[in-house]
Amino acid sequence: MLEQLKQDVLDANLALPKYKLVTFTWGNVSGLDRDSGLVVIKPSGVAYDDLTADDMVVVDLDGNVVEGSLKPSSDTPTHLVLYKHFTTIGGIVHTHSPWATSWAQAGKAIPPLGTTHGDYFYGEIPCTRRMTDKEIQQHYEGETGKVIVETFQDIDPVQVPSVLVHSHAPFNWGKDAKQAVHNAVVLEEVAKMALQTYQLSPDMAAMDQALLDKHFLRKHGVNAYYGQK
Amino acid sequence: MLEQLKQDVLDANLALPKYKLVTFTWGNVSGLDRDSGLVVIKPSGVAYDDLTADDMVVVDLDGNVVEGSLKPSSDTPTHLVLYKHFTTIGGIVHTHSPWATSWAQAGKAIPPLGTTHGDYFYGEIPCTRRMTDKEIQQHYEGETGKVIVETFQDIDPVQVPSVLVHSHAPFNWGKDAKQAVHNAVVLEEVAKMALQTYQLSPDMAAMDQALLDKHFLRKHGVNAYYGQK
Amino acid sequence: MLEQLKQDVLDANLALPKYKLVTFTWGNVSGLDRDSGLVVIKPSGVAYDDLTADDMVVVDLDGNVVEGSLKPSSDTPTHLVLYKHFTTIGGIVHTHSPWATSWAQAGKAIPPLGTTHGDYFYGEIPCTRRMTDKEIQQHYEGETGKVIVETFQDIDPVQVPSVLVHSHAPFNWGKDAKQAVHNAVVLEEVAKMALQTYQLSPDMAAMDQALLDKHFLRKHGVNAYYGQK
Amino acid sequence: MLEQLKQDVLDANLALPKYKLVTFTWGNVSGLDRDSGLVVIKPSGVAYDDLTADDMVVVDLDGNVVEGSLKPSSDTPTHLVLYKHFTTIGGIVHTHSPWATSWAQAGKAIPPLGTTHGDYFYGEIPCTRRMTDKEIQQHYEGETGKVIVETFQDIDPVQVPSVLVHSHAPFNWGKDAKQAVHNAVVLEEVAKMALQTYQLSPDMAAMDQALLDKHFLRKHGVNAYYGQK
Repeated sequence: MLEQLKQDVLDANLALPKYKLVTFTWGNVSGLDRDSGLVVIKPSGVAYDDLTADDMVVVDLDGNVVEGSLKPSSDTPTHLVLYKHFTTIGGIVHTHSPWATSWAQAGKAIPPLGTTHGDYFYGEIPCTRRMTDKEIQQHYEGETGKVIVETFQDIDPVQVPSVLVHSHAPFNWGKDAKQAVHNAVVLEEVAKMALQTYQLSPDMAAMDQALLDKHFLRKHGVNAYYGQK
Repeated sequence: MLEQLKQDVLDANLALPKYKLVTFTWGNVSGLDRDSGLVVIKPSGVAYDDLTADDMVVVDLDGNVVEGSLKPSSDTPTHLVLYKHFTTIGGIVHTHSPWATSWAQAGKAIPPLGTTHGDYFYGEIPCTRRMTDKEIQQHYEGETGKVIVETFQDIDPVQVPSVLVHSHAPFNWGKDAKQAVHNAVVLEEVAKMALQTYQLSPDMAAMDQALLDKHFLRKHGVNAYYGQK
Repeated sequence: MLEQLKQDVLDANLALPKYKLVTFTWGNVSGLDRDSGLVVIKPSGVAYDDLTADDMVVVDLDGNVVEGSLKPSSDTPTHLVLYKHFTTIGGIVHTHSPWATSWAQAGKAIPPLGTTHGDYFYGEIPCTRRMTDKEIQQHYEGETGKVIVETFQDIDPVQVPSVLVHSHAPFNWGKDAKQAVHNAVVLEEVAKMALQTYQLSPDMAAMDQALLDKHFLRKHGVNAYYGQK
Repeated sequence: MLEQLKQDVLDANLALPKYKLVTFTWGNVSGLDRDSGLVVIKPSGVAYDDLTADDMVVVDLDGNVVEGSLKPSSDTPTHLVLYKHFTTIGGIVHTHSPWATSWAQAGKAIPPLGTTHGDYFYGEIPCTRRMTDKEIQQHYEGETGKVIVETFQDIDPVQVPSVLVHSHAPFNWGKDAKQAVHNAVVLEEVAKMALQTYQLSPDMAAMDQALLDKHFLRKHGVNAYYGQK
């Protein structure tokens, strides 16, 4: 069942330690098969070294385990909320990558300060509001998804494929699991450089809108001309 | 004698350079066999590359060498005080890992700023008071243990498995040597991200208590639901 | 056609991930054959792992593809403007290396703060002015080259072989592709140390001119005595 | 001639890239044979990958090449001045290791902030005064040695085996080449942690003298009890 997707999600999970985005088991990747409405996700708390494609857990969008002998990631409800509301995405990555997590802990959005940011994110990478005690205490992981969706009320998740969850860490997404990991790597680089930029110029304003337009659209717009396509 | 524990303590010591927690011989791990009251610890000043299980030194809780041809770590008296007072722990790690050591040198506790911290530490990671000249000059290593114990007067060492020794470096512990090393790795990540968080938001307050409760207890509480158990 | 140059440019491109100057495809190297007026450059958006010498694209100085089945780097027009105006250079490297990019994002030149800088750069490494909306919207990549040339109106590009493009990232050059990569590595080290120097001494002035003269000229002057020549 | 010393000096030079203390050829190690008064030193500007024991250059204390077909390091006169004045040392290392170099560029001594420092350096690691234009322009490398010696007028070089040369980079020494490299590694760790400590506590004072005494003397004093001796 969904053998190719399981392999893709496994590969995407194994890419996290390779790109130094995770320590121990601090991360998880899922992929969605929109036809069947089924999600393949990493099992909870299993070391990356030990993961196999068969360990991947299949759940439906209501969180019922459809296949797999292991418990799915404890963050599964967050993934499911995002898949239900962000209807154009097919992969999600959660990590505690240190630079992005530092921004999340500081409760600050990452403003676009240069073209590296603009090549992937069409505007600032937002930070959610703090969650209420009630949201934390009841259905915490699902509520985490909801506060992300609330944050993106006026943002297209395809144009800004990452978010910082306040006092927590980032979530990233993409058309599939592989692209979501790619975006997680970019976020970490962008977060590092933005912090260092502020160390040099504490009052640095966002980059020019024209430059942001140019860089995002030459890669992602209808007239994109970057790459071989 | 205690062959399995010697192997475990050796493995835990060798994990220190693997996780980049030590330079040269700047660290040591011990493990306690509570049944016999014997401690297995790294010999003093021996390079990690050269260590074998047979090099591990066995001492009793009064510091007498019971087995082994090498001198035990000069920090042995610190370990012994901790084992005597923290009756639920079975492994101790001392390193000079750079991010945590920077906090120790700054004489500052690491406040809980995000869920990475909350997943392992149920509150701030304290820094000891400065030691007095007398404590330093007489039985220094044992007094180091005592000042740690004093710092934990109102803290459960199982809920906060690390401490920063003022002007010195961290000690970490756990149910066994392996878990103590695990906690030392977490401390280093948490220390790095906390410093970076302050660079972005110098007046950042501690995270919400409800969020700290949620994260610590979903991994460590009686109703824990993280992982496969 | 230009087989040796293709191999040299391939090798120089492959050196970028080796020196940790690029993430994914965020960089490109070109080399110029001044006799024929032809430039060999990396294709656009191709992963470094997959590159072969045959993938390199040959273009003339007007940007016409002379050989190669792939599209050249989208930054090709920038390279061409630099080759036309900096008549003594034979290789160009563009990266988003994180320390140098942080300075570019901060919109600040890197002043000479020590002899590591002085060994390679005879004065500050300038940052371009912001580009106008018109420059960004029309012939952006070519205009990027022009604003670099404008910045070097009174600077000898042989004496200062790098530039920071405002809100973007660095370009570096040299007598050939290999030397351009060498300078890109140096720039990244210099950018890192300059940022750290300012963290210690926020008002640090530039180094003494006599010391800058000494270091640059003992390696690059007519009476150079560094190395085996 | 001095085959063992050549091998030791080669090994010490090769340790520099291994410990990430150098980029390209930015460093050199020498060793002194006090019986013959001859110094073995790295040749100038040769890549570490290509070095062999036979490439090492033998010079006398006046700088005359006694054996070797290559030119000695351009920093040779600095080494010779140090060997002549610091009569208890047998090895010298110069690097541009980034954390220590940042302190040198900031023109600041590294104060003892913790026991990692105190285990190796019995007091602050000084920074030389700026050199005069005349010192820079005439016999620069020898004058660099003299300004280091001047800085150590009231400091025992055995108790403080490193110095920061203002606007330049560190020199380190020891009883032989291997120990000098060891001290260079320690300096880099200490420099990193001191900078990070100041980021947390900008006004941090030096550590307690009693603690510094304890740590330095338990490793280096006549009653040392660290290690297996």
